[in-house]
Amino acid sequence: LPITAAAIAASVQGVVDGDAETSVDAVAPLDRAGAHELSVFAHVRYASWYRGTAAGVVVTSPTLVHAHGAHGGARVLVDRPVDAMLRVLALFARGERRPSSVHREARVSESATLGANVVIEAGAVIGEHVVLADGVWVGANAVVGAETRIGADSRIFALATIYPQVEIGARVQVHSGARVGREGFGFVPQAGGVSRVPHVGRCVLGDDVEIGANSCIDRGSIDDTVIGAGTKIDNLVHVAHNTRIGRLCFIAAQVGIAGSTRIEDGVQLGGQVGISGHLTIGAHATLAAQAGVFGDVPTGQTWSGYPARPHKEQLKAQGALFRLARLLRPLERLVANTETGDARAGDAAGDNAG
Amino acid sequence: LPITAAAIAASVQGVVDGDAETSVDAVAPLDRAGAHELSVFAHVRYASWYRGTAAGVVVTSPTLVHAHGAHGGARVLVDRPVDAMLRVLALFARGERRPSSVHREARVSESATLGANVVIEAGAVIGEHVVLADGVWVGANAVVGAETRIGADSRIFALATIYPQVEIGARVQVHSGARVGREGFGFVPQAGGVSRVPHVGRCVLGDDVEIGANSCIDRGSIDDTVIGAGTKIDNLVHVAHNTRIGRLCFIAAQVGIAGSTRIEDGVQLGGQVGISGHLTIGAHATLAAQAGVFGDVPTGQTWSGYPARPHKEQLKAQGALFRLARLLRPLERLVANTETGDARAGDAAGDNAG
Amino acid sequence: LPITAAAIAASVQGVVDGDAETSVDAVAPLDRAGAHELSVFAHVRYASWYRGTAAGVVVTSPTLVHAHGAHGGARVLVDRPVDAMLRVLALFARGERRPSSVHREARVSESATLGANVVIEAGAVIGEHVVLADGVWVGANAVVGAETRIGADSRIFALATIYPQVEIGARVQVHSGARVGREGFGFVPQAGGVSRVPHVGRCVLGDDVEIGANSCIDRGSIDDTVIGAGTKIDNLVHVAHNTRIGRLCFIAAQVGIAGSTRIEDGVQLGGQVGISGHLTIGAHATLAAQAGVFGDVPTGQTWSGYPARPHKEQLKAQGALFRLARLLRPLERLVANTETGDARAGDAAGDNAG
Repeated sequence: LPITAAAIAASVQGVVDGDAETSVDAVAPLDRAGAHELSVFAHVRYASWYRGTAAGVVVTSPTLVHAHGAHGGARVLVDRPVDAMLRVLALFARGERRPSSVHREARVSESATLGANVVIEAGAVIGEHVVLADGVWVGANAVVGAETRIGADSRIFALATIYPQVEIGARVQVHSGARVGREGFGFVPQAGGVSRVPHVGRCVLGDDVEIGANSCIDRGSIDDTVIGAGTKIDNLVHVAHNTRIGRLCFIAAQVGIAGSTRIEDGVQLGGQVGISGHLTIGAHATLAAQAGVFGDVPTGQTWSGYPARPHKEQLKAQGALFRLARLLRPLERLVANTETGDARAGDAAGDNAG
Repeated sequence: LPITAAAIAASVQGVVDGDAETSVDAVAPLDRAGAHELSVFAHVRYASWYRGTAAGVVVTSPTLVHAHGAHGGARVLVDRPVDAMLRVLALFARGERRPSSVHREARVSESATLGANVVIEAGAVIGEHVVLADGVWVGANAVVGAETRIGADSRIFALATIYPQVEIGARVQVHSGARVGREGFGFVPQAGGVSRVPHVGRCVLGDDVEIGANSCIDRGSIDDTVIGAGTKIDNLVHVAHNTRIGRLCFIAAQVGIAGSTRIEDGVQLGGQVGISGHLTIGAHATLAAQAGVFGDVPTGQTWSGYPARPHKEQLKAQGALFRLARLLRPLERLVANTETGDARAGDAAGDNAG
Repeated sequence: LPITAAAIAASVQGVVDGDAETSVDAVAPLDRAGAHELSVFAHVRYASWYRGTAAGVVVTSPTLVHAHGAHGGARVLVDRPVDAMLRVLALFARGERRPSSVHREARVSESATLGANVVIEAGAVIGEHVVLADGVWVGANAVVGAETRIGADSRIFALATIYPQVEIGARVQVHSGARVGREGFGFVPQAGGVSRVPHVGRCVLGDDVEIGANSCIDRGSIDDTVIGAGTKIDNLVHVAHNTRIGRLCFIAAQVGIAGSTRIEDGVQLGGQVGISGHLTIGAHATLAAQAGVFGDVPTGQTWSGYPARPHKEQLKAQGALFRLARLLRPLERLVANTETGDARAGDAAGDNAG
């Protein structure tokens, strides 16, 4: 850095419109970018910001420039400006400084085993017989319970909790406030109330898993809870006991998955989706945001709504509802007229009573 | 431990199929269990795992064995294998080691009162005039605010927050990241914006209550927030100010309850249920997952959907919608034909406009 | 304090019914209030508590007293008792004791800059180059990342996380367990999986913002995440990257807002609302609880339901559904009869197939 418009264009197979030697050293949105900053204009929604921007370079599309003209700086033209922008961001990311060692105010059990280059920040608590592989980074005030094992180069952010006896793979990211391995919500009746079901199952996060901030992954009771390699989970998600999630799934914020459900590889769950217990969501299925799922979903299908159904059926039904609602009174009259003059009227009333 | 198939069968009124002397010393799911492990086969969904399992003993049903045959080990046959399994789990649970005292790096106010056998882990902060009864266990880095009182044998897990002046009964479990007693979300208009409503009400958790990980229970503003004895709350639940929840309720993950609502004894709320403010949910009512409740729910009823209605009505209406959607165009034509040749057409148009 | 019924009545333009010299020094709900406590009776739902109450003074309405009579103490009569009560609560609020300094067990980087009267409680971790303005209060075990700036008189509660490089205004309240400035949920495909999108955007909280317990506000990737001045956010809310929220919005618990959405000034979002990415919610719009929003919402409108529509349309459609469901079989017969005797039957079947 700095980097020229020409170099940015080359890295995304784009074309420069304006001074190809304009250089930038940071990224900012259109409304606050200055002459040395790169920005993106990807949707007509932001046209007024674009026209007033002071950005040195803007990544945008030929179509948008055709419609909205040039701004004061240079443009890099590509067909899909957001995708292009995401690819160049890495050039501008400011690295976070990684501490070099175990902080003297970290509280590490003497029976814990630490690999090379392990970082433990101030206030973190590492329990008995914990094993941290090479390169593990535990953030400030995080708590790692007894006998948990964490694989190489994984990072546990500040204030996250790993309960005892959890198994975490390599390159896993557990964000701040996530709770991994809690005994799940299971009770059995007994005299005078209920008692907790002991949780003897495991809680396993595969390699390259990411758990978002304040998400909760319960451990298994009679089965294991398993999150497959490469699966990414956003913030405030609940995964109940005995749930098995496959590889390379994407689970958006505030999703809730009840106990003993199986989610196969490559599934995508939109925000606030809820899935009942003991179901199977087939590989590469997609559930739209807020779907409420009470039955198995077949492989590869997209479902939505409450109760969830195939998305096309759901859309058709919702559209039909609003058209039918407009016909409500005429339809009621039609039925009334037909039934009155009809030998089957009693029969229909019987239907309605059922 | 170890324990034989015969002993397991005796404890659940089951029958052994195979070698009754086969012994096990741990529990594992069918797909990873070995010769010294107990597993359960309770649903045809897991038939392929069952057929390949190396488990020494499997708890299952006569029906499933009839359909899927024997595996390499012994079976304990019962009619309801999951229920039986949950009852025997306690034999296999590995106790968590309880520390013996107050950690020297816990930060306990000099004005706090600690009963016998209190455990406070490293980094926990105990505020002024806090009272912890006998046997209370406060986890690592948890924070307990001033003047809070916690009853005997309760456990506050790592990184939970108890705000000041909360009253917690005996044998309560507050899981990691739960926030109990925050001033709720209340504002009154004033010149130039809004000001916070002071919260002078209490926040009271009865005996044997459980609060899940990352759940939030706000204190009262003009009333108290009360969670009745024996009520169990799962992860990521929100309970707003002035809410009163009765005894022995079960509240699943991600439920949200708005302010001043009353939930009577024995209510069951499914995952992601939302309940508006100032309502009453009658005793022993059940709300299905994702229900959106905008009115009182009568005692003992099961409601579902948005807006919530009696579950049977809701199911019938949802089913009808999909059948009606298929008839949309014929019905539109019927109405059009009728109205065209009908003296009441103008009248009907008036209906639609309304 | 104590304060007389006469003085309370004067402060809320009310009228005393009973002994105007009755004095109270605390507030309690009707069912536990004693002779020296003030309570409120605002809804017929609480009539039985009112009749049995021992409260010294009750704020209520003439209508309720007309219907339910006098209790043993004095009454302050106003038309809107809850509003009146909220205005007098400030008289009774017990101030929380503010510590006077930086706790000796707080861990403050030597490169951090602290203004006058800054309070940092035990166990809090303040990163490198952090700037805390005058009067900032950081709670026990909270973590503030490197290069973050926090404005005057703001409060970060116990166990909250502020990620690095966040910008927080004056008089902001960040409640326990909130996570502000996490890199959001963004990935781009690469050989063998995905890689994280670097987040080079900012995370900015304006003056007088409040973030509830366990809520998560992600930082921007290619844009900034901005919460406008005076906006109040309740517990367990998710705000994704690149979201811009205007001034004076109210966002209830468990709301989820996907990436790059713009929420204009004065918007009100009910509990559990979900909003998809890249939308605009117009100024002063209201979204009812649990609404699922998949398109722009015009300024000033109230929308509800899934998918969200104008609230009146939604209500009408939901009502119509239940009436139409009762007509399902007669309508199916009507269509069947019509189609059978109708030259257009084949045509209608074609419709259905589409």
